[in-house]
Amino acid sequence: VLDIRVDRQADRPIFLQIADELERLTVDGTEGLRLPPSRDLAARLGVNRNTVVSAYQELIARGRATARTGRGTFLRPPAGARAPWSEAVRDDAFREPRDLHGAPDADYSFAANFPPEDLLPAEALRRALDDVLRREGARLLTYGSPQGYRPLREWIAGEMRRQGAEVPVDEVIITTGSQQAIDLAARALLGPGDRVLLEEPGFPLAIAAFRSHGARVEGLPSDGDGLQTDRLARAVEEAPARLIYLVPDFHNPTGACLSEARRRQVLDLAHRHGVPILEDDSSAWLRFCGAPLPSLRGLDAHGLTIFASTFSKMLMPGVRIGWICAPAPIRDRLLALKQLTDCTTSLLLQAAVHEFCRDGGLDEHLRRVRAAYRERRDALLGAMRRHFPAEVRWTEPEGGLVLWVSLPAGLDGRGVAAEARTRGIACNPGDLFFIDAAPRGHLRLTFAGMPPARIRQGARLLGDVLRGLCERSAAGRDGGEAALLV
Amino acid sequence: VLDIRVDRQADRPIFLQIADELERLTVDGTEGLRLPPSRDLAARLGVNRNTVVSAYQELIARGRATARTGRGTFLRPPAGARAPWSEAVRDDAFREPRDLHGAPDADYSFAANFPPEDLLPAEALRRALDDVLRREGARLLTYGSPQGYRPLREWIAGEMRRQGAEVPVDEVIITTGSQQAIDLAARALLGPGDRVLLEEPGFPLAIAAFRSHGARVEGLPSDGDGLQTDRLARAVEEAPARLIYLVPDFHNPTGACLSEARRRQVLDLAHRHGVPILEDDSSAWLRFCGAPLPSLRGLDAHGLTIFASTFSKMLMPGVRIGWICAPAPIRDRLLALKQLTDCTTSLLLQAAVHEFCRDGGLDEHLRRVRAAYRERRDALLGAMRRHFPAEVRWTEPEGGLVLWVSLPAGLDGRGVAAEARTRGIACNPGDLFFIDAAPRGHLRLTFAGMPPARIRQGARLLGDVLRGLCERSAAGRDGGEAALLV
Repeated sequence: VLDIRVDRQADRPIFLQIADELERLTVDGTEGLRLPPSRDLAARLGVNRNTVVSAYQELIARGRATARTGRGTFLRPPAGARAPWSEAVRDDAFREPRDLHGAPDADYSFAANFPPEDLLPAEALRRALDDVLRREGARLLTYGSPQGYRPLREWIAGEMRRQGAEVPVDEVIITTGSQQAIDLAARALLGPGDRVLLEEPGFPLAIAAFRSHGARVEGLPSDGDGLQTDRLARAVEEAPARLIYLVPDFHNPTGACLSEARRRQVLDLAHRHGVPILEDDSSAWLRFCGAPLPSLRGLDAHGLTIFASTFSKMLMPGVRIGWICAPAPIRDRLLALKQLTDCTTSLLLQAAVHEFCRDGGLDEHLRRVRAAYRERRDALLGAMRRHFPAEVRWTEPEGGLVLWVSLPAGLDGRGVAAEARTRGIACNPGDLFFIDAAPRGHLRLTFAGMPPARIRQGARLLGDVLRGLCERSAAGRDGGEAALLV
Repeated sequence: VLDIRVDRQADRPIFLQIADELERLTVDGTEGLRLPPSRDLAARLGVNRNTVVSAYQELIARGRATARTGRGTFLRPPAGARAPWSEAVRDDAFREPRDLHGAPDADYSFAANFPPEDLLPAEALRRALDDVLRREGARLLTYGSPQGYRPLREWIAGEMRRQGAEVPVDEVIITTGSQQAIDLAARALLGPGDRVLLEEPGFPLAIAAFRSHGARVEGLPSDGDGLQTDRLARAVEEAPARLIYLVPDFHNPTGACLSEARRRQVLDLAHRHGVPILEDDSSAWLRFCGAPLPSLRGLDAHGLTIFASTFSKMLMPGVRIGWICAPAPIRDRLLALKQLTDCTTSLLLQAAVHEFCRDGGLDEHLRRVRAAYRERRDALLGAMRRHFPAEVRWTEPEGGLVLWVSLPAGLDGRGVAAEARTRGIACNPGDLFFIDAAPRGHLRLTFAGMPPARIRQGARLLGDVLRGLCERSAAGRDGGEAALLV
């Protein structure tokens, strides 16, 4: 706690007295200390909040404090005494899991939200690389354009047109995967304190990217038809929002699709309130049943949608190729940021992906993997019905790679995942997908990672784990109640 | 200009009056207007600066203004009337050139600061890709680890050890080129207003990356021995600095190397003042004469150096593979940011580059290209001596790909580059490499892009351009003086 004295009788203005006192603290070695919110300190000292704000500004001007975007104001130790990394290591904006492997060492993995090795067209990509390098040679090993390889951009614009979104080739920027697309959009649009609205549970790396730029991320509930638009309406009416982030198709982690009616409502709200939308299309191409829905970009008549997609899920993550389409006003800024971020995306891999996709190559691949994913989803759903306790609930997605499990009261996703891991089964506890206060009664299961027979075996074992924990939980409750009677 | 009235007799506090007046402006459609620095508005209104600071904070709290990192405070129009991209397109933090092609359509290009196509080992890379895909298959087409492909990280740590820098493998993070390494370091360390010190002229994409995170970038002069360390000493003593950015070997654009004595001085200053160093090693492996110098990372006994390098210049840019090494306290944060930025760098390309480099493959390649670059540099220097006007000066680098030309008084780098372009010659005007007020009497010439005979032809033609402009400039001066006599 800060020991600060203020003398109301003194000539020196109070805000300068506060600044002096805080500066004194930096000398005493309270290195990297986070100052309380100005409102709190003002209440404590009985002064106007703006007096404290002025004191903090004064400290920053003296080089004695730093405002870290979205995280508050931190004291700096005197330069000589300062450990140079101190602020960096104190940062807790990045709590997302590190693991992108999908736990390959597990006997049964329900954790990998990307195509499994047995469905990756390694041989076809090898041939595509070989062909383009023999044909175009060293030219493909230079930087290329920051906006991307033109034939690939044209192919993308053509596919998007086929799917109902007219996008000029000039709007398409190739990115190093869709994570880069999300991060670039965030970096272009968001500043400290900007409000981002999204579905919760949601994609942790998107949430972390928004927060890393200082945004305040606010989760809104979703249901079987995706984001609840009445809640979105209330949220945008209540205060200005800077961005709405949506995964309309096969949402990660719920697997839900936003209904067409809601898509139109979202666009209408965005238009009326002047809020840009970031549409994350990563899994949309993996629909294996049900009718396709038009993208927000396709329905948008007002140029409010930034569209981000990737080849990671539909083809393979290892090529690190995604794209972002944005209306002209924001396109230039995204392009400048793209260049600052990594200059260009590998021209060689862009050419190889184009070689693979063109002339119906991707269509053929998609036919094959969609059938496989459908079969795997069915295997998982069937095994869950057979082996999971009756109280467990789950979503039944029409595409993508993931589904969302809701556990009965008393069961904790972390506990289930940990117990499952001891039996060789990997899956993701649901709290990873929440913003702050994380409901713990969920699991995310991906059905992509294994052939159907193995999925059935794994799900049966996971069912054993769940039943065991349900019994223990029930016993614990009884035990607890019994104890009260003693 | 803002028309703001303040009534000192009124009960309402002055900061609220200012906020009210500013809010009124947002209704009248002054959308996206940048507010004056608080100091200026305070002087204009005759109030304390902190009163204005409080007014701006109040406006932000009302949702009527946004503080954009490092750029000031901007009014927001009322949400309904607000064009959603307005703030984005007003941003001018990115004035760097877009062109990374090195003007391939020019007859003679002295503009490409990367290996030319005739020195790119396209066939060897094709074989490396083929080999690793046949050997490891689909595994290379998944995400891999955010930190990078372990065999490549081990190879890098081994090479750095051979060059005198002991770097634990755990410190090495693979990045998507060195631009990403620079941007990640900036993002990890820099916040609004943080002071970055670097050599000026300097690398535009680094300057832009620092600025994009809100940093104040301050240029310090350099000479034939690199950054003038007495000026660095003065700068770090005068006010706290958050980062020192250095390109110690074959600096872009001057081609200079920082002397060993100065390297030790920089490290000593950084240590005494607790300032991290970002060492950009991009061209260091391309020394073709003179004795190698130890890297800052190698000399650093205090763990203050973040080391960034890349395969772009020594091998090829198209693979987009670089790396960053940082002491443990900052390594974790860089790794978290790496994941937010683009998840991972292509595992396939990492494996192919490792395949190419291992067992002396890179050494062999470097022997070949160093000899070629030396021959090309000599061709350019010889032709410049023969064909450039006597008043023109230039640097004579011992490695890398670029040299720096200083033009005589009266000649303008932009004018020279434009005139040269009409004769089919591409080169970069020097003002691109300055931070703000840009001296215009310079050119950057790269000697990598063409075989020696073509370099000689191009330099002769560029000499013609320079001589013509020198004559016109002299005539202009005479004409000017004559006109005064009239």
